[in-house]
Amino acid sequence: MTHTNQIVIDKVRKSRIDSTDFDNLTFGKTFSDHMLECTWKNGSWGDVEIKPYGPIMVEPSCKVFHYGQAIFEGMKAFKDDQDDVFLFRPADNWIRFNASAKRLAMPEVPEEIFMDGLKKLVELDKDWVRKGDGQSLYLRPFMIASENGVAAAPSTEYKFMVVMSPARAYYRGEVRVVIATSYSRAADGGVGYAKAAGNYAASFYPNNLALEEGFQQIIWTDAASHEYLEEAGTMNIFVRIGDKLLTSPHNDRILNGVTRRSVIQLAKDMGIEVEERRVSINEINEAARAGELKEMFGSGTAAVIVPIKGYKHLEFVHELPTMEHSYAERFKKELNDIQYNRTEDPHQWRVKI
Amino acid sequence: MTHTNQIVIDKVRKSRIDSTDFDNLTFGKTFSDHMLECTWKNGSWGDVEIKPYGPIMVEPSCKVFHYGQAIFEGMKAFKDDQDDVFLFRPADNWIRFNASAKRLAMPEVPEEIFMDGLKKLVELDKDWVRKGDGQSLYLRPFMIASENGVAAAPSTEYKFMVVMSPARAYYRGEVRVVIATSYSRAADGGVGYAKAAGNYAASFYPNNLALEEGFQQIIWTDAASHEYLEEAGTMNIFVRIGDKLLTSPHNDRILNGVTRRSVIQLAKDMGIEVEERRVSINEINEAARAGELKEMFGSGTAAVIVPIKGYKHLEFVHELPTMEHSYAERFKKELNDIQYNRTEDPHQWRVKI
Repeated sequence: MTHTNQIVIDKVRKSRIDSTDFDNLTFGKTFSDHMLECTWKNGSWGDVEIKPYGPIMVEPSCKVFHYGQAIFEGMKAFKDDQDDVFLFRPADNWIRFNASAKRLAMPEVPEEIFMDGLKKLVELDKDWVRKGDGQSLYLRPFMIASENGVAAAPSTEYKFMVVMSPARAYYRGEVRVVIATSYSRAADGGVGYAKAAGNYAASFYPNNLALEEGFQQIIWTDAASHEYLEEAGTMNIFVRIGDKLLTSPHNDRILNGVTRRSVIQLAKDMGIEVEERRVSINEINEAARAGELKEMFGSGTAAVIVPIKGYKHLEFVHELPTMEHSYAERFKKELNDIQYNRTEDPHQWRVKI
Repeated sequence: MTHTNQIVIDKVRKSRIDSTDFDNLTFGKTFSDHMLECTWKNGSWGDVEIKPYGPIMVEPSCKVFHYGQAIFEGMKAFKDDQDDVFLFRPADNWIRFNASAKRLAMPEVPEEIFMDGLKKLVELDKDWVRKGDGQSLYLRPFMIASENGVAAAPSTEYKFMVVMSPARAYYRGEVRVVIATSYSRAADGGVGYAKAAGNYAASFYPNNLALEEGFQQIIWTDAASHEYLEEAGTMNIFVRIGDKLLTSPHNDRILNGVTRRSVIQLAKDMGIEVEERRVSINEINEAARAGELKEMFGSGTAAVIVPIKGYKHLEFVHELPTMEHSYAERFKKELNDIQYNRTEDPHQWRVKI
């Protein structure tokens, strides 16, 4: 697929970087100087515009408001000690973005627009990528239906955009989870595997119920039986029973996370036995009762690895042990070392800008 | 629940009505002079603003673009021969709107804002409601998450809006459907019963596959087994076997349509036996083979009643007979007569503006 359209750059007159307090950032609230915008219309993509971050005008009949065609990716840019900037497995995000697009009946975004546009944008705002452990620039490519009109049919126009937000490693406190037994995130034959906006909206209410009970997240189970582990909505889930690592296979209900795939590869590299298979909640509960449930953790771009301290399933509440040299810690360190260019990169996951 | 905020009206200087060609309208593309906007912020609703229809400014980080909190309703206003304007069961839409809001972790909209605002808006643009059979003004109340920021959590700000589009009865050609056997619309414990934007986006791709096969719509089945009838995405589905009318019960996967409920009531009024129960595809196929499948039709606000001429299920393709005095025709006529104030209204469904 060749795309010959231009990248048109309109730079800010004055950067906002000096008035940005990088020590006090709320995740996802501050944006870098520039954003990317590219419009699909009459069956093809126009020029890639890189321009000052700012509001867009949309009609209230804009289809994204009514029929929810909206997808996104979450990615990060990291800076090493030599001021070089790296992305982490960006092609994986591009491929998944287009898988999401296809399922939502949206046009695919060519590599020349997604990857070249993203690199150009990060390069332009590279001062917004701060040095130091935990510092990163969070990249948010997304696409929305932009045709005006309230007839229930796929949009004939779309906007692909990228905005970028400086992020710090954040300690989210201890995370305990509720395992879902009535609400569901996704159906077989549905859009669970896509990074579709509507999947997130659907999860907020059940997640609020978990919060009210004093738990931080829901772990989803299959809608049909609620007997099998799925994912956590913003993270894939790993369970360590004995020395073995288990995670659900990706399917049409479960997002195939880039961090998830990286953890599986690192586990293999480290000689840790890892199984991608259906994991029943019953198996987890029995391992917990037998003292064999050593760890649970989530994996995702935003927080990399999130150790889970405890869980509730129906009436059963279980607190996980504190492990020395936990798998979670080892994966987090190794992933960070690769991301910040502090170690070898045997799988070529780093992409230098 | 009392809402004491004002309705603030900013009228257009010059109406667009004279330049509107009411004989050549594309559904959902033309909007009346005014729209309604009301913002929820810091835990409460502000003033209801009625103002000229036009674009709104939103940041690209606006949460609706990323996490899909967006819900809507579809309603219509009708004009009788005396130039009186009526809504059809509007309180039902308001109640369902708030059920959708709750499931999507959005604030409920008080009756004073939804109903009084809507009535005031229709009254102001009542010239846009045209007289004559099939003419109506389509009303689109909707709510979107409007906080800026890409953290995956419910929005702290929302916009409730209403836009209105003049509509004509349209003949959509003969409708034949594919009964879903692999893709799904909704999961148990999910958001299928809500008028959530994301439900529609999820249906477009499978519906496109049906279109490519020469069918106009998909009829969804349950995600777990694909053995039971659910709904058609924009319509509820009725099946007539012999003289009996069958439709799926509403549950957490199926939208409880206002037209659906009206048809069930009218059937009872007409002495037609109607059953709300699980309807298996097998039962439909067997009735088709035995010559007992007399009618299938969809019910919804936009097209009222849509007769289905044929269907495909796996390899089985069936063409329905043409019926004299079909149930579909009788329901459509009775509903239209009530909506246009041409007959008695025993259930008080009409609400005069």
